[in-house]
Amino acid sequence: MQEFDIVLRNACVNGSHTCDIGIKNEAITALGLGLVPTEDTEVIDCEGAVVTPGGIDGHVHLAQDRSPRARAAGYVSADTIETGTRSAVAGGTTTVLLFAEQAKGQSLKEQVANYHLLAQEQGSYADYGFHAIITDPTEEVLENELPILARTGGIMSMKLFLTYKHMRISDKQFLKALKKARELKMVALVHAENGDLVDFFTEHLEEMGLTEPMYKAIAHPLEAEAEAVNRAVTFSSIMDTPMVIVHVSVQEPMQIIRKAQSLLKPVFAETCPQYLLLGKQMLAEEHFCGAKYICSPPLRSYPKEIEAIWRGIVNGTFTIFSSDHCPYRFNDPQGKQLGFSRDCNGDPKGIFTKIPNGLPGVETRVPLLFSEGVLKRQCIDVKRFVELTSENPAKLYGLYPKKGAIQIGSDADLVIWHQQESFIPKRLNHDRDLHDGCDYSPYEGIEFLNWPRMTLLRGKIVFREGSIVGKRGYGQFIRRKPCSLPFQRRMGKQWNVLQAAL
Amino acid sequence: MQEFDIVLRNACVNGSHTCDIGIKNEAITALGLGLVPTEDTEVIDCEGAVVTPGGIDGHVHLAQDRSPRARAAGYVSADTIETGTRSAVAGGTTTVLLFAEQAKGQSLKEQVANYHLLAQEQGSYADYGFHAIITDPTEEVLENELPILARTGGIMSMKLFLTYKHMRISDKQFLKALKKARELKMVALVHAENGDLVDFFTEHLEEMGLTEPMYKAIAHPLEAEAEAVNRAVTFSSIMDTPMVIVHVSVQEPMQIIRKAQSLLKPVFAETCPQYLLLGKQMLAEEHFCGAKYICSPPLRSYPKEIEAIWRGIVNGTFTIFSSDHCPYRFNDPQGKQLGFSRDCNGDPKGIFTKIPNGLPGVETRVPLLFSEGVLKRQCIDVKRFVELTSENPAKLYGLYPKKGAIQIGSDADLVIWHQQESFIPKRLNHDRDLHDGCDYSPYEGIEFLNWPRMTLLRGKIVFREGSIVGKRGYGQFIRRKPCSLPFQRRMGKQWNVLQAAL
Amino acid sequence: MQEFDIVLRNACVNGSHTCDIGIKNEAITALGLGLVPTEDTEVIDCEGAVVTPGGIDGHVHLAQDRSPRARAAGYVSADTIETGTRSAVAGGTTTVLLFAEQAKGQSLKEQVANYHLLAQEQGSYADYGFHAIITDPTEEVLENELPILARTGGIMSMKLFLTYKHMRISDKQFLKALKKARELKMVALVHAENGDLVDFFTEHLEEMGLTEPMYKAIAHPLEAEAEAVNRAVTFSSIMDTPMVIVHVSVQEPMQIIRKAQSLLKPVFAETCPQYLLLGKQMLAEEHFCGAKYICSPPLRSYPKEIEAIWRGIVNGTFTIFSSDHCPYRFNDPQGKQLGFSRDCNGDPKGIFTKIPNGLPGVETRVPLLFSEGVLKRQCIDVKRFVELTSENPAKLYGLYPKKGAIQIGSDADLVIWHQQESFIPKRLNHDRDLHDGCDYSPYEGIEFLNWPRMTLLRGKIVFREGSIVGKRGYGQFIRRKPCSLPFQRRMGKQWNVLQAAL
Amino acid sequence: MQEFDIVLRNACVNGSHTCDIGIKNEAITALGLGLVPTEDTEVIDCEGAVVTPGGIDGHVHLAQDRSPRARAAGYVSADTIETGTRSAVAGGTTTVLLFAEQAKGQSLKEQVANYHLLAQEQGSYADYGFHAIITDPTEEVLENELPILARTGGIMSMKLFLTYKHMRISDKQFLKALKKARELKMVALVHAENGDLVDFFTEHLEEMGLTEPMYKAIAHPLEAEAEAVNRAVTFSSIMDTPMVIVHVSVQEPMQIIRKAQSLLKPVFAETCPQYLLLGKQMLAEEHFCGAKYICSPPLRSYPKEIEAIWRGIVNGTFTIFSSDHCPYRFNDPQGKQLGFSRDCNGDPKGIFTKIPNGLPGVETRVPLLFSEGVLKRQCIDVKRFVELTSENPAKLYGLYPKKGAIQIGSDADLVIWHQQESFIPKRLNHDRDLHDGCDYSPYEGIEFLNWPRMTLLRGKIVFREGSIVGKRGYGQFIRRKPCSLPFQRRMGKQWNVLQAAL
Ligand SMILES: [Zn+2]
Ligand SMILES: [Zn+2]
Ligand SMILES: [Zn+2]
Ligand SMILES: [Zn+2]
Ligand SMILES: [Zn+2]
Ligand SMILES: [Zn+2]
Ligand SMILES: [Zn+2]
Ligand SMILES: [Zn+2]
Repeated sequence: MQEFDIVLRNACVNGSHTCDIGIKNEAITALGLGLVPTEDTEVIDCEGAVVTPGGIDGHVHLAQDRSPRARAAGYVSADTIETGTRSAVAGGTTTVLLFAEQAKGQSLKEQVANYHLLAQEQGSYADYGFHAIITDPTEEVLENELPILARTGGIMSMKLFLTYKHMRISDKQFLKALKKARELKMVALVHAENGDLVDFFTEHLEEMGLTEPMYKAIAHPLEAEAEAVNRAVTFSSIMDTPMVIVHVSVQEPMQIIRKAQSLLKPVFAETCPQYLLLGKQMLAEEHFCGAKYICSPPLRSYPKEIEAIWRGIVNGTFTIFSSDHCPYRFNDPQGKQLGFSRDCNGDPKGIFTKIPNGLPGVETRVPLLFSEGVLKRQCIDVKRFVELTSENPAKLYGLYPKKGAIQIGSDADLVIWHQQESFIPKRLNHDRDLHDGCDYSPYEGIEFLNWPRMTLLRGKIVFREGSIVGKRGYGQFIRRKPCSLPFQRRMGKQWNVLQAAL
Repeated sequence: MQEFDIVLRNACVNGSHTCDIGIKNEAITALGLGLVPTEDTEVIDCEGAVVTPGGIDGHVHLAQDRSPRARAAGYVSADTIETGTRSAVAGGTTTVLLFAEQAKGQSLKEQVANYHLLAQEQGSYADYGFHAIITDPTEEVLENELPILARTGGIMSMKLFLTYKHMRISDKQFLKALKKARELKMVALVHAENGDLVDFFTEHLEEMGLTEPMYKAIAHPLEAEAEAVNRAVTFSSIMDTPMVIVHVSVQEPMQIIRKAQSLLKPVFAETCPQYLLLGKQMLAEEHFCGAKYICSPPLRSYPKEIEAIWRGIVNGTFTIFSSDHCPYRFNDPQGKQLGFSRDCNGDPKGIFTKIPNGLPGVETRVPLLFSEGVLKRQCIDVKRFVELTSENPAKLYGLYPKKGAIQIGSDADLVIWHQQESFIPKRLNHDRDLHDGCDYSPYEGIEFLNWPRMTLLRGKIVFREGSIVGKRGYGQFIRRKPCSLPFQRRMGKQWNVLQAAL
Repeated sequence: MQEFDIVLRNACVNGSHTCDIGIKNEAITALGLGLVPTEDTEVIDCEGAVVTPGGIDGHVHLAQDRSPRARAAGYVSADTIETGTRSAVAGGTTTVLLFAEQAKGQSLKEQVANYHLLAQEQGSYADYGFHAIITDPTEEVLENELPILARTGGIMSMKLFLTYKHMRISDKQFLKALKKARELKMVALVHAENGDLVDFFTEHLEEMGLTEPMYKAIAHPLEAEAEAVNRAVTFSSIMDTPMVIVHVSVQEPMQIIRKAQSLLKPVFAETCPQYLLLGKQMLAEEHFCGAKYICSPPLRSYPKEIEAIWRGIVNGTFTIFSSDHCPYRFNDPQGKQLGFSRDCNGDPKGIFTKIPNGLPGVETRVPLLFSEGVLKRQCIDVKRFVELTSENPAKLYGLYPKKGAIQIGSDADLVIWHQQESFIPKRLNHDRDLHDGCDYSPYEGIEFLNWPRMTLLRGKIVFREGSIVGKRGYGQFIRRKPCSLPFQRRMGKQWNVLQAAL
Repeated sequence: MQEFDIVLRNACVNGSHTCDIGIKNEAITALGLGLVPTEDTEVIDCEGAVVTPGGIDGHVHLAQDRSPRARAAGYVSADTIETGTRSAVAGGTTTVLLFAEQAKGQSLKEQVANYHLLAQEQGSYADYGFHAIITDPTEEVLENELPILARTGGIMSMKLFLTYKHMRISDKQFLKALKKARELKMVALVHAENGDLVDFFTEHLEEMGLTEPMYKAIAHPLEAEAEAVNRAVTFSSIMDTPMVIVHVSVQEPMQIIRKAQSLLKPVFAETCPQYLLLGKQMLAEEHFCGAKYICSPPLRSYPKEIEAIWRGIVNGTFTIFSSDHCPYRFNDPQGKQLGFSRDCNGDPKGIFTKIPNGLPGVETRVPLLFSEGVLKRQCIDVKRFVELTSENPAKLYGLYPKKGAIQIGSDADLVIWHQQESFIPKRLNHDRDLHDGCDYSPYEGIEFLNWPRMTLLRGKIVFREGSIVGKRGYGQFIRRKPCSLPFQRRMGKQWNVLQAAL
């Protein structure tokens, strides 16, 4: 007879059926009716509430303040790996994919090692992996370092930038990196904005003295995103390599992506809570508060673009839903205030180019989509919610079925929601509700119709009724495998220039 | 402790993880490792082979020879409910949705009652439900009969035809029927071809004496399908009512459907094995054998349209994959030979308009998609295979989660596949392999890389290692609920002309 | 040496170059510098003003009140052929294409003869031709009457309706008519709205008591137009026959048409002044004045659809620009007041279904496009203006190069505009400015930046500085030739079912 | 009475009407019937043959071998301005737009001056203008040189490259150049291929030793063109500046362009004879003859892409039809043989990267489109032929109405064609028929159904019945004005970053 460390009673698994879940040795070992606890078994009554797999956040920047440029600019991330992952589990996310960033001239392998060390030092509450940010795809990096990282390091994804002066790579470097990604079965994440276009607009705004946060939305026109997405999708197709376009924020690139998907090009897409919920008018908030909403791509038109993004959530254009958590404190000279200045009259003046780029969101991501999509709009069901927040990121990033599923053998990473009928809707209050290192949330005041009651990571309860009960350092590094989402390959093992064009 | 009637050991559930499945009282009651059998428990070792939920075939014509017109024309269906459902379970399908057909002037309610009786008399091997074919949407039918059928009869779908002289309804009748479908939460299935266009082409072919089976492909141009699909999709959108376009056979309507789906119109689509595998050149087979492939819409261009249909299988355009099983014996004066004639010289002559319309396929549907899609092309994974053949039909037609899932509480309708490594590929031989009442299969000679080893229906093994072991009459009528696939409603409970246009 | 009846000095021909135009015996016989008048030559100094070819209005209903149904309903057209063509020439239109309408059961040939008689009796100021409205395409009509009308009658176009209970034909009749059009080299004009859909909506509005003029816009949803256009375009393509979709009013059908045009399908499109300038809010005007704007398709959303229509004017989607002049007097019990009623309390009540359908516009068409398109928006040049209002209708309807061009040998049908710099903009006042038989203009109050100074028809000045100087009866019936706009034929002389599908 | 230097009798002007054309002092001064010659008048009887305006070739490289890189590589153009323009007039082209090329580091103004000198020295048979190729858009060039060239030099177009290592500019330079083009009312011509992608493919082919001419088609995948066109179109739209995409060779960029045109973006497109007539299989011709067909973009798939290009000719996607004449002799060590080599065994070996890039075509352009489009396919009429070859290039490049029209006041640049009925079709033979400095024609052997009988330039006959009769040096430099094709401007005089995004 099976023995269990924990039995969850009356769990409405993925919203589709109700049963008990038995957990032993970190994993799910039974789904059934009337599972029999032994003396040591902890029994938790879910009371028929929904239980979903632990969230997997495929896009989280923690301690992303260690590059020479960040140090020079004086940015300090609001979250360490400790505080960021603490926040994650409190919001139902049990695995995060962080970024190990190579700066130009640096060794990528060394930087990955540094981030491993950092994770050890700071201690993670959640399981984690790394995406390798490649800003300098030298032959050494591509031919020597990357194969080691992929084959023995379990790092199965690279992040490439088409914008930001210090990070962007040329189209030729992009093609080379994709060729290597294909060979190593890595997935390429792409920040797709046309850097030259953004710079050109930014400089014109600066010349006109238009530097307040609201001009961020002008500086990054949607055409910059659409153009870069079209280019990236072309390259993905021609290199026959799976690619994720991260943080898609508007309709036009969505259409490019969906057309490619219709034709079975290996293109996946990510969107983020800010593009589902926040319009660019937030950037105009008074007293420099617009700075809280500075991110790239910027917030877009409400409701036009926001409705389009919701359509992509529903119609399948988006494969994953991530936070792009990248927090900077608002009231902090090493945070958003870096972009605060005064003009010659001493009047306050925002300089959007100096405001650190990014929003917090790792804790709110899962509850936001559940509350807004499943409960308020009722435009997605729990199955799709789970795909977006857990199953698909797990498959895309090589974690499945260890992660991303409530099935026998999977890690017992679980979110127990509140019984819907008895949950009292709450308006988000950062200081009361959240567990990150930041001092605000962009979703402050939004009403949540549910919230994780408990989060389990590998069979341990790490968050319970509002309180962190997990241990710092319990989170493990996860060595990943290749993408297991189905996608079409046009060529055999080797990429071949003769077959590459369609 | 749980007791089990049956335990399946080492089942690779939906291709994603391996565990035991415990079954009690017709239902799945446990998923776990090392489930403990009792004395009465039958233990079946799946040896790590894939186990999937029993197939649900949403489009099956059995005994569809009872309308006045069919009787007049002398058609006899090759399958009764007995032989057709026997064939179904032998191919891994445990639930079939049959058609109860109203002829013009008849009462729909009476015809449904007749089909109930017929099922009782002939006895089903599989569980079954009915779609109501409405050819005469009188006020009596719409206002009195249909509400009873839906609310107490568990018949939650109507089938409407835009072609066939004896069945087609006008656009106005179509709109009225959709309004009623919306009110009753029924789904509308639509056979979408422009009947006038098909008739016009057919008459021109007849005038030219071009009546051999191959001219069927000319008589039903793809434009007839594309036009009708566009019209149907427009009406679905304007009436805010979920609709399934059945047996989509070419690319152009797929594009119309996908565009509508992108915009969250409540449009679902079905395709069938013949459009994935057979090209129209089959219609030119010698010795009148082209008649075996006569169906509507007709077979299309190979490989152009066939590749397009596969894309729709992969990219999500198709919600369900059904057989459109509608069998007529080839060597039978009440079957395909009805279209065989001789000219004045005594030379053989085919007359496609007199050949009964339809192909057998209820038994081959599930193994074909598994073999061709999951194993040969590897373009879909088992998850998508299950969605297409079982989960989505269950949701669309109101059977979920009783049917369509391997989860606690669901009916123990299961297909155990052969261990992949040890299965010896076999080329299909109708007489040796199949269990239907027909005398040929259009898929004869195709190599299958796997085949159901066992089929269970509500916890009983009904097919085992090539033999039917179920009992005639074990199959039950299933009262259905509304569609549970997520779709968007633009209006509240009542359809409202003021909001209907976009 | 050439002698001239008239010499126009300093004419800025089609806005591109300035020269003299010499006219002799009704035709243009010279373009040059310093043409030498003789004693009898009238010399008109154009002072460098633009001169364009006389407008050709391809869509004019005059005396369209003679069908049994019109008589029964009590409609009387506000314009006879006399008043309508008087109005035409006063607005720079020298040729009008009228409709000879067959009612069901009638002979088409007889009705054409009747319209010929009527034109004789009433007397035309403009040259004219007839489109044959076919509502009853019997074999007699198609096989016997139509060939005579086309081959000896010079009637090279048929008009077909997909809506209006008394006029609509079935899809099969539509296909048959197109086949005959192809054979006779006629062009098919199509009023494309789905009649069943319009009826269904209308009945629902009536049930709710929503009958005021503004509900006309609801009763004819844009989907009714888009659906019918898609169907018509499909049929045009499959029958390989040139077709004009008349009075396109919204974006969606424009996209269908442009896609077809991109693929070289023989599809042309027409729009009308009301869809360029008037939004549906006009229908809500007080005191039943909304009735003045009742037409089909109805006025649409301002500015969304109006901007789309302008795009089609500029990008080439629209081949011709016609008035769809169909006037009913407002203050007239046989005009718009037919739809005015009182409820049981004696309160006024509009009934849109009883309001005669149509707007006047034959006089304003040419000046409106010149003023709004060439001068205000500057989105088209004079070349495109001439194509839309004269050259293309001439080519499409077989009048070119006799009509539609300022070139040697063409009829001297000319519009002399006012010198732009010296024209004082005027706001339209129906009673002061127009010459029709109606009692209002829907464009009342719009500011015109230019207006024809003189109109010449076959070398005679028929309108001069605001006054009609032409003679009733001077206008001639024009026997037409086949369409000379370039379009692609997929087949040879005979339409062939085997090649018809793509 | 008008006096004439020349009278053309019975000219079928632009294929639409027949009259006489009177010419005096280089210009057209009369169109009429029975123009009266005086003693000195030369009378030419056109016998009813078509007469069209002299061709304007908007894309001609003559003496394009003067850049440091060309000198280093050892290329010598097969045509000087003398031989190239001689060839032009023999093919009915009376005006050519040549390129004045700045190499990196050079002054643009100086190079333009050099080309002016060269034209003086070599002597032109045709009128000509210059496009300024900008490869180094320094502040000096953009702010000082370009305004002078545009405002006083009559150079109203710039050419920008997105490929070729020595010529390509960055996206930021592209944006800056467009901003300046807008300010100066210049048109931007863009060679749109993604240079990095072409280089990447080329290097992979070289690594594999695949360097024969046929691999040119692989090295420049259509995706390189589609991507760059999408980027260029985006920039045109965002910078609100008219742009011509030159030498479009495949369908995908056509679709991007047509979509932009539908939305009234200021995007024009050019295609060339080679993309209408030659497939990439020509590159595989034996004995290194494939080298004759090396150009960029390369020849594409026959008939797929060729049919698509024809559609663009017909449906209006293409605004102009140019030759991209860029000739290198085949049997010449300074021509195509630069790419001929021998491997270690002494076997012949082609190296496509060393083969000078380009085809001759200035003489065949006009007769090819007339013969293939107007006469063989009959897919365009003479009006459209004239638009593509003369009227639109004249308007686009600021030459209209001096050039590009047969109307009073225009230069008497005319092509008299042969009477169609009496022309004996001839298969092209380079040495017999053409007048260029090259030693082959890619159109050798193609049958021409007509050919210019005479060419007149500013009232002088320069080509007559197969012989050059014009004088070297008669051709003049033409100072140009801004584009007069209608296009939409979204902004006022100044480009404004705040309005730039849509
Ligand atoms: Zn990013
Ligand atoms: Zn990020
Ligand atoms: Zn059917
Ligand atoms: Zn069927
Ligand atoms: Zn109409
Ligand atoms: Zn009309
Ligand atoms: Zn080029
Ligand atoms: Zn060139």
